[in-house]
Amino acid sequence: MASPGSGFWSFGAEEGNKEAENPGTAKAWCQVAQKFTGGISSKLCTLLYGEGEKSSGPAGKDKEELGSGEKGMACNCDTKACDCQKGQANYSLLYSTDLLPSKNGEGVTMTFLQDVIDILLQYVVQTFDRSTKVIDFHYPNELLQAYNWELSEQPQSLDGILLNCKTSLKYAIKTGHPRYFNQLSTGLDMVGLAADWLTSTANTNMFTYEIAPVFVLLEYVTLKKMREMIGWPGGSGDGIFSPGGAISNLYAMLIARFKMFPEVKEKGMAALPRLVAFTSEHSHFSVKKGAAALGIGTDSVILIKADERGKLIPSDLERRIIEAKQNGYVPFFVSATAGTTVYGAFDPLISIADICKKYQIWMHVDAAWGGGLLMSRKHRWKLNGADRANSVTWNPHKMMGVPLQCSALLVREEGLMQNCNQMHASYLFQQDKHYDLSYDTGDKALQCGRHVDIFKLWLMWRAKGTTGFEAHIDKCLELSEYLYNIIKNREGYEMVIEGKPQHTNVCFWYVPPSLRNMEDNEEKMNRLSKVAPTIKARMMEYGTTMVSYQPHGDKGNFFRMVISNPAAAHQDIDFLIEEIERLGQDL
Amino acid sequence: MASPGSGFWSFGAEEGNKEAENPGTAKAWCQVAQKFTGGISSKLCTLLYGEGEKSSGPAGKDKEELGSGEKGMACNCDTKACDCQKGQANYSLLYSTDLLPSKNGEGVTMTFLQDVIDILLQYVVQTFDRSTKVIDFHYPNELLQAYNWELSEQPQSLDGILLNCKTSLKYAIKTGHPRYFNQLSTGLDMVGLAADWLTSTANTNMFTYEIAPVFVLLEYVTLKKMREMIGWPGGSGDGIFSPGGAISNLYAMLIARFKMFPEVKEKGMAALPRLVAFTSEHSHFSVKKGAAALGIGTDSVILIKADERGKLIPSDLERRIIEAKQNGYVPFFVSATAGTTVYGAFDPLISIADICKKYQIWMHVDAAWGGGLLMSRKHRWKLNGADRANSVTWNPHKMMGVPLQCSALLVREEGLMQNCNQMHASYLFQQDKHYDLSYDTGDKALQCGRHVDIFKLWLMWRAKGTTGFEAHIDKCLELSEYLYNIIKNREGYEMVIEGKPQHTNVCFWYVPPSLRNMEDNEEKMNRLSKVAPTIKARMMEYGTTMVSYQPHGDKGNFFRMVISNPAAAHQDIDFLIEEIERLGQDL
Repeated sequence: MASPGSGFWSFGAEEGNKEAENPGTAKAWCQVAQKFTGGISSKLCTLLYGEGEKSSGPAGKDKEELGSGEKGMACNCDTKACDCQKGQANYSLLYSTDLLPSKNGEGVTMTFLQDVIDILLQYVVQTFDRSTKVIDFHYPNELLQAYNWELSEQPQSLDGILLNCKTSLKYAIKTGHPRYFNQLSTGLDMVGLAADWLTSTANTNMFTYEIAPVFVLLEYVTLKKMREMIGWPGGSGDGIFSPGGAISNLYAMLIARFKMFPEVKEKGMAALPRLVAFTSEHSHFSVKKGAAALGIGTDSVILIKADERGKLIPSDLERRIIEAKQNGYVPFFVSATAGTTVYGAFDPLISIADICKKYQIWMHVDAAWGGGLLMSRKHRWKLNGADRANSVTWNPHKMMGVPLQCSALLVREEGLMQNCNQMHASYLFQQDKHYDLSYDTGDKALQCGRHVDIFKLWLMWRAKGTTGFEAHIDKCLELSEYLYNIIKNREGYEMVIEGKPQHTNVCFWYVPPSLRNMEDNEEKMNRLSKVAPTIKARMMEYGTTMVSYQPHGDKGNFFRMVISNPAAAHQDIDFLIEEIERLGQDL
Repeated sequence: MASPGSGFWSFGAEEGNKEAENPGTAKAWCQVAQKFTGGISSKLCTLLYGEGEKSSGPAGKDKEELGSGEKGMACNCDTKACDCQKGQANYSLLYSTDLLPSKNGEGVTMTFLQDVIDILLQYVVQTFDRSTKVIDFHYPNELLQAYNWELSEQPQSLDGILLNCKTSLKYAIKTGHPRYFNQLSTGLDMVGLAADWLTSTANTNMFTYEIAPVFVLLEYVTLKKMREMIGWPGGSGDGIFSPGGAISNLYAMLIARFKMFPEVKEKGMAALPRLVAFTSEHSHFSVKKGAAALGIGTDSVILIKADERGKLIPSDLERRIIEAKQNGYVPFFVSATAGTTVYGAFDPLISIADICKKYQIWMHVDAAWGGGLLMSRKHRWKLNGADRANSVTWNPHKMMGVPLQCSALLVREEGLMQNCNQMHASYLFQQDKHYDLSYDTGDKALQCGRHVDIFKLWLMWRAKGTTGFEAHIDKCLELSEYLYNIIKNREGYEMVIEGKPQHTNVCFWYVPPSLRNMEDNEEKMNRLSKVAPTIKARMMEYGTTMVSYQPHGDKGNFFRMVISNPAAAHQDIDFLIEEIERLGQDL
């Protein structure tokens, strides 16, 4: 499509300090801040009223701004610490070397970190404010040129650092905004955020109990609970938190291969017969990516047909398994999907489990997106059969709104991960330590160091209870049904699949008036394919909302609405529909 | 060894509220807090003086404490928000559902997040206080039983959540403590911490420019700078931040295989001749782990001899390459190490580069640990030859003190990663977007979603400048030389390798008086092997310091001291020596 330049859309009025045009909001905020908070009130008010950061257009005019315009942040004294205003430090004279562990660095450190937090709290407040933009969009080259992002020999003073923080957030996407629907992971949970801040502060590593005692225990407790929710007796089994669903799926394939042919660890694929894996044509691309990485090859991933709603067809799976065996291949892995990326389809897990049992194939369930539904008594039936799987991928950072990254692989057989991955590195996993070594989980991972992803999920679960996650999930599904009910018979919309959504995915075309009376032919589909990208580009330019689109199979670009955002409400669904029509009616 | 129970060592007096026995420190802190900080002063003082969390022994006595003892945290009113003390909320009546995005949730949210931050700031202050413990050690079953960590149906009120935060930090290892030397990753950088808090708040994902514009650009800028530091002309090439050094090394092997045999992506290892990889016997276990995962097999990783200082012997490498070729194998990958895990050895990269060039083998440099030395004009010669590598792993979360996780893989040839890993998922990487798609980096990753690891490194680099990293690295190397100079001729110490340390690794045995006059025989080595684990266990029980030990080859357990901690000073090295002698003299 023709890319409109940044100046093409008349959003100039929204470019400046938002509060300048909406002083009432700032004032209201100030009052809230002063009523409830201990010490951040004055700073928050200062930030709301006079942030000091100038409006920055895309034209590079403000390139010099990094060293200027720091109203309200630093005092004007020429000594590093002064008494002119309590809590103020002259950041233009201060550097990172003045912070802890520097001698006498405590005061500056506390002030600096508090000022960073004030910036973050302001962002949090804005995130949930429907009158703020979701995105302040600029093209890559504009953003590269508008600021000096370069790394240099010499240090920058702390005023520059604080400004860097503000600038980075100014152009960040508000992924927690009530009108952000762009990804499967949306929302900003306050307890999750607090937990992630704590995780950063603890700054440790999951490989041994020695250096992460609490986090290791919490991972143990949480994985067990997740296995219980899947339905494995007593929550028995194994598992690990990995850096995302693609890696969790890769783990599953790796372990399945090892289970069938343990010699692969030493001998490699050369010692094995030709393996084949099966997954639906609607499954996530990470199954193929994993096969490529593991030396199995993408040609050995056989794509099974899905029905019109995106569910794997079991009879086609069985047919292809028989066919592969007849051709001398060894079927070792079936990856069913619970919640496909585009349609939100749930594969028929019970039938797939029957087939896997019959042919003795490892059954994996990629429930990265759909796993959250296990928390809902109303919706968990959609995953019936997952309890018969050998492994399950489940990403709490998607439907459960846990901050990124938080993905678990659950494995039914205990000990297999350890046997598959361990290398007995004696310098890390010493066998003569003075505590129970079964808590040193590092050697069952593909990684050596491993980020602490558990605390935010655990703390959110404590704060919400299972019933809290359930309420969130039921609400998101209710909202998507609300959307579906509005647009299914509305003029100008065509549904990509028939029937009520199974997950929160609602796939549809918006058909502008100019196309509504056209015959259904190739020309119409070609023109229709350009509608969603154009509306999306306009959404980003205006910054009002974000929703994803894509082509799929022989279907041209359509919108895929998903709702995992706890902030979203009925009014935001209404807004989305109005906005699509506003931005697309002239196309 | 016999495990001493928790009560075995008489550290009871240190168990309680630290400040109770050291009121002077709390008072001093209070004064500091009140002088410099805007609003956190009173809260910080309250926390320092009366945290409200009771001392918890390992005996499970305090199991009920989660619902009690909240002095100073909540008011006693029976309404959710009250005026009795500004900034106080009655958390026992508040739940996560009262926080944003709840209607009118702003005030409670600000207060709650600020209270979390106060807990974190207190932890930061304690981290750098030499009179606090590095670790408050308890055995896994003790810690499991001492608290109720379970996840339940019903939500917990916010007072419980705040207490969970405190409890988790109480048993956390202070990885930034000046006397924490246990891992290659140590320290707590204040700018890095601030940046990680911001990253959590932005809560986005690296796969597209669309949802992480600033972070994607900063990754671009930083990877280019890192390639410049390696010495690749104009910083050209490619790269990615991955979840740790093991994954970065796996990437390198994956890309090297693809470069030589691009058909592996579709056809798998079955279509390839038998591959072999080479690395030194001192290299990191992730090279073997990667080979196992990629279907190459650990038997195909040929371990090359290292000299007495741990450096790969080039002549042995060449001999083994020739031998492998003669046996019909195809050498495709050499992983040299710049900074081995135990000895801190730097392989002779120039000689290795010559051999790789001669036999046309991909040269990878695992500089996860040693890469930081590229920032030092004094020490960067140790990586001479890295500029001739095809790929380099470099973990800023190790020697450069960036918070975990932060690991980069740099690749000299542009486009290779993309070709190797891309699967063209149209639902994520739409080709008809309105901006330059070269900034959508997701399809070159193994992962789909990818955590934002870049901001903390970028912001620290801005704050320190290259010269700041240089000063840190030079200081750490100077400190390790200081340690080496003290112990090399001191009674009761034996060095594992001769000569000045090349990196900050100093490997040594402490020989207790009872063993000093023994002959060097098997019995002495057996007894000596038990010394380091016993001293380490005692260190953890006392909580005074932490340093790693391991056996290596035919050498029994010895201490491996490493210094990457910016807080460490000469006095901490002196302390470590005294502590080892205090804890080990009776063995």
